[in-house]
Amino acid sequence: MKDLNDLFVHLLKDVYYAERQILKALPKMAKAAGTAELKKAFESHRSETEGQIERLQQVFEMIEKPARGIKCEAIEGLVEEAKEVMEEAETPEVMDAGLLAAGQAVEHYEMARYGTLIAWAGQLNLPKAAKLLEQNLVEEKNADKLLSDIALRAVNKKAA
Amino acid sequence: MKDLNDLFVHLLKDVYYAERQILKALPKMAKAAGTAELKKAFESHRSETEGQIERLQQVFEMIEKPARGIKCEAIEGLVEEAKEVMEEAETPEVMDAGLLAAGQAVEHYEMARYGTLIAWAGQLNLPKAAKLLEQNLVEEKNADKLLSDIALRAVNKKAA
Repeated sequence: MKDLNDLFVHLLKDVYYAERQILKALPKMAKAAGTAELKKAFESHRSETEGQIERLQQVFEMIEKPARGIKCEAIEGLVEEAKEVMEEAETPEVMDAGLLAAGQAVEHYEMARYGTLIAWAGQLNLPKAAKLLEQNLVEEKNADKLLSDIALRAVNKKAA
Repeated sequence: MKDLNDLFVHLLKDVYYAERQILKALPKMAKAAGTAELKKAFESHRSETEGQIERLQQVFEMIEKPARGIKCEAIEGLVEEAKEVMEEAETPEVMDAGLLAAGQAVEHYEMARYGTLIAWAGQLNLPKAAKLLEQNLVEEKNADKLLSDIALRAVNKKAA
């Protein structure tokens, strides 16, 4: 990797791969979730993820590169952790707490990645790409916030 | 996993493993960093990480479990990405931008994990453990903020 452009393309491919892995994992997480609220959160984030993948494809077009992913070990590990939860949770309470935690770890990973991509797009003078990536970042932040709220409501409900 | 306590212990072991991997990776990242500022940031976060590991050991003591890690695929993947940067960066500029990005992805992972552990410690009525974990979370947030500031200063300096 010789310059910032190489880094940007590499990370874009990494995130593209990650989003497609997440797209495959979310329906399984929605199916496993115990409460209607969490199911709905995963399902609606699945639709959002489709839109995010389209935005990434637009960014690839802007920089005139084919939209291709490269295997990203970190997201593999994060999705693996969600699978572990689904296999090992013995009660609906443990399942939902574990899925919420796995979901938030994924959102934080994406938030870090989009933050970096937006900074690099700025440096590379790609304001339109930065804007699309910013939209994805906002959605990830909102998804993380929603999962936090669901976790908090579950705690309060149990305490009441 | 039968209850929230099982989940808490599992995630605590996961984070304990992660922090020890990070402790090993940081001196390599400091050595590879091109600017004195980034070197210093990684070095001082290495010292902080030692303190964080000690706090995790205290939490293990509080719940009367041996301080043991379990392999965490996500952090393996994140550390792998930092290694890739160190192997493939051909210029100091690319090296530092890549290391900053890798460092921030690690910080975000930890922020997500400590956020979850603190919520669970609250539910399990472990306020002292929650307080120790909160200290780690604050340090991770500050480390992430410092890396963002370094990245921003590098951009502004280049633009000037």
